[in-house]
Amino acid sequence: MRETTIIKFTKPRLKNPILVEGLPGVGHVGKLVAEHMIEELGAKKVMEIYSPHFPPQVIVESDGTTRLVRNELYAYKSKGKQDLLILIGDHQSTSNEGHYELCGLFLDIAEEYNVKRIYALGGYGVGQLVDTETVLGAANNIQLVKELKKNGVEFRPNEPGGGIVGASGLVLGLGAMRGLDAACLMGVTSGYLVDPKSAQSVLKVLCKILEIEVDMQALEERASEMEKIVAKLKEMEEGKTPAASDEDLRYIG
Amino acid sequence: MRETTIIKFTKPRLKNPILVEGLPGVGHVGKLVAEHMIEELGAKKVMEIYSPHFPPQVIVESDGTTRLVRNELYAYKSKGKQDLLILIGDHQSTSNEGHYELCGLFLDIAEEYNVKRIYALGGYGVGQLVDTETVLGAANNIQLVKELKKNGVEFRPNEPGGGIVGASGLVLGLGAMRGLDAACLMGVTSGYLVDPKSAQSVLKVLCKILEIEVDMQALEERASEMEKIVAKLKEMEEGKTPAASDEDLRYIG
Amino acid sequence: MRETTIIKFTKPRLKNPILVEGLPGVGHVGKLVAEHMIEELGAKKVMEIYSPHFPPQVIVESDGTTRLVRNELYAYKSKGKQDLLILIGDHQSTSNEGHYELCGLFLDIAEEYNVKRIYALGGYGVGQLVDTETVLGAANNIQLVKELKKNGVEFRPNEPGGGIVGASGLVLGLGAMRGLDAACLMGVTSGYLVDPKSAQSVLKVLCKILEIEVDMQALEERASEMEKIVAKLKEMEEGKTPAASDEDLRYIG
Amino acid sequence: MRETTIIKFTKPRLKNPILVEGLPGVGHVGKLVAEHMIEELGAKKVMEIYSPHFPPQVIVESDGTTRLVRNELYAYKSKGKQDLLILIGDHQSTSNEGHYELCGLFLDIAEEYNVKRIYALGGYGVGQLVDTETVLGAANNIQLVKELKKNGVEFRPNEPGGGIVGASGLVLGLGAMRGLDAACLMGVTSGYLVDPKSAQSVLKVLCKILEIEVDMQALEERASEMEKIVAKLKEMEEGKTPAASDEDLRYIG
Repeated sequence: MRETTIIKFTKPRLKNPILVEGLPGVGHVGKLVAEHMIEELGAKKVMEIYSPHFPPQVIVESDGTTRLVRNELYAYKSKGKQDLLILIGDHQSTSNEGHYELCGLFLDIAEEYNVKRIYALGGYGVGQLVDTETVLGAANNIQLVKELKKNGVEFRPNEPGGGIVGASGLVLGLGAMRGLDAACLMGVTSGYLVDPKSAQSVLKVLCKILEIEVDMQALEERASEMEKIVAKLKEMEEGKTPAASDEDLRYIG
Repeated sequence: MRETTIIKFTKPRLKNPILVEGLPGVGHVGKLVAEHMIEELGAKKVMEIYSPHFPPQVIVESDGTTRLVRNELYAYKSKGKQDLLILIGDHQSTSNEGHYELCGLFLDIAEEYNVKRIYALGGYGVGQLVDTETVLGAANNIQLVKELKKNGVEFRPNEPGGGIVGASGLVLGLGAMRGLDAACLMGVTSGYLVDPKSAQSVLKVLCKILEIEVDMQALEERASEMEKIVAKLKEMEEGKTPAASDEDLRYIG
Repeated sequence: MRETTIIKFTKPRLKNPILVEGLPGVGHVGKLVAEHMIEELGAKKVMEIYSPHFPPQVIVESDGTTRLVRNELYAYKSKGKQDLLILIGDHQSTSNEGHYELCGLFLDIAEEYNVKRIYALGGYGVGQLVDTETVLGAANNIQLVKELKKNGVEFRPNEPGGGIVGASGLVLGLGAMRGLDAACLMGVTSGYLVDPKSAQSVLKVLCKILEIEVDMQALEERASEMEKIVAKLKEMEEGKTPAASDEDLRYIG
Repeated sequence: MRETTIIKFTKPRLKNPILVEGLPGVGHVGKLVAEHMIEELGAKKVMEIYSPHFPPQVIVESDGTTRLVRNELYAYKSKGKQDLLILIGDHQSTSNEGHYELCGLFLDIAEEYNVKRIYALGGYGVGQLVDTETVLGAANNIQLVKELKKNGVEFRPNEPGGGIVGASGLVLGLGAMRGLDAACLMGVTSGYLVDPKSAQSVLKVLCKILEIEVDMQALEERASEMEKIVAKLKEMEEGKTPAASDEDLRYIG
């Protein structure tokens, strides 16, 4: 395989579709939200994307079968005024050039489906354990910034200071060049651990923006499970308990 | 040389050929098994594969002559119901994109020979010296998983946790996309040393699956030689003996 | 986006244009000078250059909007005998091959505008805090070396010892192959911090060479602000004061 | 510049030319020998090779002028039975793929000049300061191994253990695929320092093989200068003298 390859499953007709991008990144916040939405909304798989820019790797499933790492696009036909396309995946590109190629491809697909707006989901790592519901935003036009502020998204001048790197960044940057409105919603998180609590915060904001409802039960359970692990880690740091067994720790990564 | 280049030696007619992949990897387990099989079965060289994705390197042979690093395909015509193609090599691709290209090429060759099943051999590094005959499996379809379980291959949910990386992984992943059955047999090993003992375990399982017999004498000798080195290393760790001389250590890598 | 992409804004007619390159590098000296010149001279944007060789990243502006990282070309129509083209940017290429491609492109543009001379601006890191106005030079022909010496540029045999790496180097090297005169002006700097003082020194020399005047107020202010930070850092090193707060430090990078 | 580019100066008619490759490598042994030969024999420049696989860098000469890093081919018309082509350069390729491309190009040139034999020069780093005239060999056919042994070149089974990496290795490896005889002559050296003494040993052997005479005065001077530095370094290690000043040390690299 020398070129990025798409396998199509369906070609749904969608009304005013919004693209939600939730590829893995800081705290896996975006990925948790997007996967949760696909699950809860019962979205249908539209296509799989395979690429030599991904790592040369297969995932081993619980039944011992394998599948090549990939990105996937799902569609959700809502009863409201707009449908959803949701992009998830195992990995982002491993090379800079690959990032540009793949995000260009994502936008080709967005244009094909006549997507008018994109929400790129991610985490904003602050380098220490935090307990906040803050969702930081950035958008590729000022109108969208204003709209997001009304929905409780926080904007801080020139933050993140290092810009937004990877697929979420490029979707905004390359999107602007094509006239596609795109915003990034970043849940504030430590950056050290998978953070389902921050994912909840992002999902709440996104639901408000999209005027949809998504059951949060599963995310809440993962969040409270994670809280226990964090509590244990803190205790360990303070020397109160012996190191957690391997079994405990394997839930973290 | 800008492109991967194949030099063909013969084009044997093979009945129901099985492809065995034994490129270098964790503990060199797969490579040891595949090289041993070629030696013992007297398999004939079918082709050499050279590629700019391999390191820019020649190997120096015992007589002072050199040869460019490469992958090689051998064929074994059995008296049983199926013949073998065996893929070995000095290196795997040094880049991700090269991995995808080369594994695509391996599968092209498999299809050309009408291969219906592929066994990718490797090691599963557990990070500590182990003494086990366990062979872990993964396969690109559930039917094959069941079949392997019957032959003593162990399956653990979602293990290896990091998936399978490199040629063995891609052969399964890209193979599935072409409808080629492929399984990975991983000998459990420390991951620190070349492990002929783990290679023996993998070879035993593979022989059972393929219903062939391969003399294990040579591998056993290498294994017992290796055990002496490991024993010496353990003693050294415990401070009982002075450090091994350079001469001893050169057998390890 | 698989290829470097140019978005053109205007195509000014320029008389005897000089190209000034100020992409980011050691101490951000070249970038500070070039950005300052664009600001003070009121130069107009000619084009934006986007490339998969840049990092996959957007910058977040103070109003929360984003823009893809890029290089930009500005033009300044002077009342004197020669106009200016000024090249700035957020990043240089992240790969060697990308450097060669992009610098080739810069020279294509220079030739298109009939540029006869190029000044590549940069810093020369000496590895310790220095207080000097020295501007080191290098040029792609001996005539230009002589000319620069007359303007106070210092030349030291075989310095910088490691040659000149990146866009500034390639503009000289590839420029020579096309018969384009090009010189590099390097402000001596620590290499640890953004250095507006060294930028002032480079700007002074450049103004003398180009026979133009540029108000230095803004650079002076940044320089004196930076001096306070450096003083604070020195105190910290000597253990006189507690570590600067995060707020202070964010001005440095 | 997206592609490797050749600038031709002359196209000499050569009788039975031998190609000597002396690109930079371990201890710069090969480079020292080849540059010395060009100097002493008064060889003429045939071509310059520029490539995006080299670093994006210019060298600053003693007069302040710059030149792009490159490889160069020189020709020496002898009075004996065979002429010489000598390949030198500032750098080797920075990427694996680039190594394969460039060495392919070197061999294209060798074939164009009807070269029948190639000597790749290099160093063999042993990781400690050594005082030996040993020249280790490797060749891409057994006949050549025998010939070299007669000329005092030492062959050790499977050494270098890591094979030969880079241009010297590929010239042998890719050369074999084209039916070009090629040998590598490696001066035994520490691998830490530029080693003109080891270069002398290699040059002696090469002169014997080629049946030519080359004045060694300049190399001897560099060698004795280097010996003084090494003596000083040893003293420093033993704590006898204060650290050498920067001025002393700049001669080493």
